Amino acid sequence: MPSNNERSSSLLGLDELLRPRSLAVIGASDTPGKVGYTVLRNIVASGYKGPVYPINPKDPEVQGLKAYRSVLDVPGDVDAAVIVVPARLCVEVADECGRKGVKGLIIISSGFSEVGRKDLEDEVVRAAGKYGTRVLGPNIVGVLSNSDHMNASFAPFLPFPGKVSMVSQSGALVVAIDAATYVRNVGFDKLISIGNMADVDIADCVEWLDADPNTTCISLYIEGLKDGRRLIEAGLRATKPIVALKAGVSAHGAAAAASHTGSLAGAAAVYEAAFEQAGIVQAADLNNLFDRSLALSLQPPMRGENLLVLTNGGGVGVLATDSAERVGLPLKFAPADLQAELRKSMPEFGSAKNPVDLTGMAGADWYYGSVKACLTHPWVDGLVILYCETSLTVPMEIAGTIHRAIVDSGVKDKPVTIAFIGGEQSAKAMKGLMENGLPAYDVPDKAVNAMAALNEYAHIRTLARDESPADDLGAAEAAAREIIRSARAYGRLSLTEIEAKQVFAAYGLPVTKTALARWEDEAVALAAGMGFPVVLKVVSPDILHKSDAGGVKVNIRDETGVRDAFRIIMKNARAFKADADILGIAVQEMAPAGLEVILGSINDSSFGPTMMFGLGGILVELLRHVTFRVAPVNRVLAKIMLEKIHAARITEGLRGEAPRDREALAGVIERYSRMVADLGDEVAESDANPTLLYEVGKGVKIVDARIILKKTSG
Amino acid sequence: MPSNNERSSSLLGLDELLRPRSLAVIGASDTPGKVGYTVLRNIVASGYKGPVYPINPKDPEVQGLKAYRSVLDVPGDVDAAVIVVPARLCVEVADECGRKGVKGLIIISSGFSEVGRKDLEDEVVRAAGKYGTRVLGPNIVGVLSNSDHMNASFAPFLPFPGKVSMVSQSGALVVAIDAATYVRNVGFDKLISIGNMADVDIADCVEWLDADPNTTCISLYIEGLKDGRRLIEAGLRATKPIVALKAGVSAHGAAAAASHTGSLAGAAAVYEAAFEQAGIVQAADLNNLFDRSLALSLQPPMRGENLLVLTNGGGVGVLATDSAERVGLPLKFAPADLQAELRKSMPEFGSAKNPVDLTGMAGADWYYGSVKACLTHPWVDGLVILYCETSLTVPMEIAGTIHRAIVDSGVKDKPVTIAFIGGEQSAKAMKGLMENGLPAYDVPDKAVNAMAALNEYAHIRTLARDESPADDLGAAEAAAREIIRSARAYGRLSLTEIEAKQVFAAYGLPVTKTALARWEDEAVALAAGMGFPVVLKVVSPDILHKSDAGGVKVNIRDETGVRDAFRIIMKNARAFKADADILGIAVQEMAPAGLEVILGSINDSSFGPTMMFGLGGILVELLRHVTFRVAPVNRVLAKIMLEKIHAARITEGLRGEAPRDREALAGVIERYSRMVADLGDEVAESDANPTLLYEVGKGVKIVDARIILKKTSG
Repeated sequence: MPSNNERSSSLLGLDELLRPRSLAVIGASDTPGKVGYTVLRNIVASGYKGPVYPINPKDPEVQGLKAYRSVLDVPGDVDAAVIVVPARLCVEVADECGRKGVKGLIIISSGFSEVGRKDLEDEVVRAAGKYGTRVLGPNIVGVLSNSDHMNASFAPFLPFPGKVSMVSQSGALVVAIDAATYVRNVGFDKLISIGNMADVDIADCVEWLDADPNTTCISLYIEGLKDGRRLIEAGLRATKPIVALKAGVSAHGAAAAASHTGSLAGAAAVYEAAFEQAGIVQAADLNNLFDRSLALSLQPPMRGENLLVLTNGGGVGVLATDSAERVGLPLKFAPADLQAELRKSMPEFGSAKNPVDLTGMAGADWYYGSVKACLTHPWVDGLVILYCETSLTVPMEIAGTIHRAIVDSGVKDKPVTIAFIGGEQSAKAMKGLMENGLPAYDVPDKAVNAMAALNEYAHIRTLARDESPADDLGAAEAAAREIIRSARAYGRLSLTEIEAKQVFAAYGLPVTKTALARWEDEAVALAAGMGFPVVLKVVSPDILHKSDAGGVKVNIRDETGVRDAFRIIMKNARAFKADADILGIAVQEMAPAGLEVILGSINDSSFGPTMMFGLGGILVELLRHVTFRVAPVNRVLAKIMLEKIHAARITEGLRGEAPRDREALAGVIERYSRMVADLGDEVAESDANPTLLYEVGKGVKIVDARIILKKTSG
Repeated sequence: MPSNNERSSSLLGLDELLRPRSLAVIGASDTPGKVGYTVLRNIVASGYKGPVYPINPKDPEVQGLKAYRSVLDVPGDVDAAVIVVPARLCVEVADECGRKGVKGLIIISSGFSEVGRKDLEDEVVRAAGKYGTRVLGPNIVGVLSNSDHMNASFAPFLPFPGKVSMVSQSGALVVAIDAATYVRNVGFDKLISIGNMADVDIADCVEWLDADPNTTCISLYIEGLKDGRRLIEAGLRATKPIVALKAGVSAHGAAAAASHTGSLAGAAAVYEAAFEQAGIVQAADLNNLFDRSLALSLQPPMRGENLLVLTNGGGVGVLATDSAERVGLPLKFAPADLQAELRKSMPEFGSAKNPVDLTGMAGADWYYGSVKACLTHPWVDGLVILYCETSLTVPMEIAGTIHRAIVDSGVKDKPVTIAFIGGEQSAKAMKGLMENGLPAYDVPDKAVNAMAALNEYAHIRTLARDESPADDLGAAEAAAREIIRSARAYGRLSLTEIEAKQVFAAYGLPVTKTALARWEDEAVALAAGMGFPVVLKVVSPDILHKSDAGGVKVNIRDETGVRDAFRIIMKNARAFKADADILGIAVQEMAPAGLEVILGSINDSSFGPTMMFGLGGILVELLRHVTFRVAPVNRVLAKIMLEKIHAARITEGLRGEAPRDREALAGVIERYSRMVADLGDEVAESDANPTLLYEVGKGVKIVDARIILKKTSG
């Protein structure tokens, strides 16, 4: 954990904002039903220990507390102010708070960017910023913290206590989830409504919560990020598990999210990649966010992939087995010695293989012995314990025994998740388990999925933390910028193929040799210089689809061929577009046939430059199988990209073909991603298509290159 | 619904077995803890109205009821007997029951095929069968029925009352689910534990429940079927929605299921196809089975695909939108007039598009107007209503208003599903909704998924019910059987390519012309007869991979070519395997290039002959993208197969290619499936690979054919 003096400047004021020692409520009211009434009442009712100052221009006393006309009149220090006055008054209030030395504003009031008044929001942040005051919101429910006995919100009560802290972009969800924690027995320490994120954003909260002693898991509900890279950085620095639900992953959903929060929702695929790069575990839906947060807040990560399922019902054992395969943790048979040990506590028709089926005859003592045997066996990396309510057993007794077996085993570094399938008795038993730090669920699938989260967490943290040394490409950037500057000087927003290849080459990318010939003899000389066969292509900013214009000739084997091709291409180009600005004809080394892949980049609205990799042919054309990562990617991430979208199997040599040079391709992806990251202020999109991948040792060749510039730099 | 005299013979005795007017409990006991004690106590405690006769060889009275030494001593009629005596006594008991005229045995006792004693199980069924007595079980929990006030099981109480009836192959799940119904408020009428299915199987129960007046939805938990086709037939005849969870879909899970139930679990893909063909809706996991059963038991099917989502929280609206896309019901914007109407009940920053966001300001009156407006609008086919608990609203009031709006709308043929996201208050409100016939869930995803079940149900019922007239292929079967008989006479279990093509041709399948030449001149004559170019291939039961043996020559354009090829192939074949039994050389019409597809069949252990269709090349080799249906398939199903695995887009003409002759291909699939269905007792597997698909109007050509016979006929 970083020490205080290492903490980034984005954390300034967050301690006072999120754990204030004193609070003012600006707009506090004595009229039930008003938000200013509810918020003040909630702060007092939740047992907040610090001084609370109601601010009200008219009443000398609010809800029995001495009130002040302005925050400036408050005698003591004010760490944070909860603001519920109308939007139009917030600038003035922010200024007063700044003058008073308030460190954080919790602006519950709405009427800002969510209704098109971004100007007002900016003004408030500016007013606060003059004094170094931080702003949470506006348009939020507030902040709730069990460990601080503080419900500074209009949600009716503090959540069911626990170790998860949640940051949510939806205020309505904060209120609903707050209540739901009591039905689900999922414990939270803090609920932070983040609203319009005019100043403090999700990344700030992640960084702050990572150092919060009362939080063991950070849970995020995200609709759209303005600066996704800050979240990746915060995720990478975090020492606690983070789990996120991204809403608005469908096209229509993204539109709905956009209209709702005013944020631009990034492409689902980019979010998915970014979470993986940040070491953030994903949740599939709202229940899954609860389920995974619970497990991540209570249990250690799974350090290997040997999952054991223990059950008293064959049916739920089968369902758990199916789930395990679905979540990427397929069951393997338990080792022989463990099977032998387990067979001691089961009838002959039980099974010790995995799932371990103690059968419906299993009582508490069988569970005790089996749980202990499983946890202490070195093969087992994680244990899912299932219990079907039976007429012969008492759920609470089974739960107690399971807990005792885990404690008695002395094993603390292996995760356990539990499912009790049954009625009220099982529900009560599960509540007891959860209060003792054991995540319990009502169906086997959830217990298995929660275990998968503990596996994914361990796995992606390893990935995210890898830092292979990167090549020094400083000179490349300067050369690339010069080429781009020159194209912009001619008013062009797309580079010619030759220019694009020059940029690629500056970054050490293996483009086919290409040179511009302005007349026939020059073409002959260039071809002779690079060696036959060659390809000739027209170069013109007015002819984008060169083949359609008859502007490409391949496999030219000698001088006569070059001369013929030059003339024909020139003729075709003029016929295609009489006034085309023809810069010349590119003479290009002809690459031998290879496996076609595609590299590319787009600039995502939330995450900036991203790296794309795909396989040529039907997989990309029909299935749109491509994979993204936020650029730059290191060598390890580049290799992970090569494992995706069936690339692993194809590049390893399908149908008896020789394996391909994956090492070289990973290096190319790494450099390409550095290029688009460096030039993120200039390049809107790019691709290397086709890129040809050869057999091991023979490398990669980029045959065609394309770079489209942003309309304006920066 | 079929009248009684149309009901199939498999239903004989089921009325008495599942709704008995009188019950004997054989093995009834006075000792608490014994199953014979529990079962008798449960029957009495559940308020069963008919006479109950405890049978006990020693005690004259059991639990205060007069007991009898044998069922034969009972004075009145006995419809069904619940049997809890040890397995070894069951044959004698079955015989006594038969003599007494008992119509059904509910055999709770275990110790039969689940522990390897299938012999004992068969003997019991035989003993009962002599008297026409039906057997449920053995190895079951029993039968529970709310409408009959009968808990003839060792599960502790009747389930939460409702309209779902469930049949489960897992006994442990029956007990656990029974209890769980009270936590989930999902109402069941009957729970039937089906155990080893020695006699009565799932198909029988489906058929019987379809006529049961107290059941509106049939819910199945399936591990493995012995005769899958009977379930398809029962599904096709059913008039009520059926929803099924298939456990054991993973390879490891199938192994676990097999060891658990003794049934062979079919391939997951075949089950999926079979359910679709049977009009059975699938559930993804146990919670999903609950969720979907609930909706299907309470709501009408969705008659179109226009889904409207109404919410008071933008966040949950976005989550519902994502879910809708995930389940194949992507949201569309509501029509302008509906939007205009809805805009009357929302603030300016709300949205009337879809999801319709009333915002957190929404009170009961806004819900009332909006629900009514949505339901009565002709565009809306289904309505998902979401409510986030807020501090300003009372969940019970919102629930009451929603119910009133639906009733007042007068609309009864459009489904509604609901999600209340919140705490105890919301849970209580949802219980009220469910008791009033409105399925309600705790997260938006579940409400959307339940709506999807109502859509899938409507959709697959249409598919399943289609009955296009089929061609008369009676003569084909006789010809095919003659060819197979002849191959078997030579002791061969695989047909030669020529024989396989003869079988295919008998069914009118468009195979390339192929004839056997035993010497060179014959080959020349045959080639001249069919027209050049031709292909020559060695025919030998000892050479399976003809190309590897140098046994194939293509594109032969004249007589000299035929002679050269004949000699070279003969030489190569002898070099490859000196003692190979060479039947001759096949002369074959050379088919022009076309789009490669694959047809094939396997014999599934649960469902028998199945039809497979796939696309050639990378999709089948790498992605194993093939689709199955249980054979035979009609023209409509054949066309559905052509929509799957990206076949639709590829055959419609990818990359500007001309569309392919899908109509001809559908016809070929239909006939192929008839062939493998007719010959299901003989053919183990077959394929037509490659099959070439040409442009519209140019049909299909099967280039190579393969038929592998079963080891023994039948």
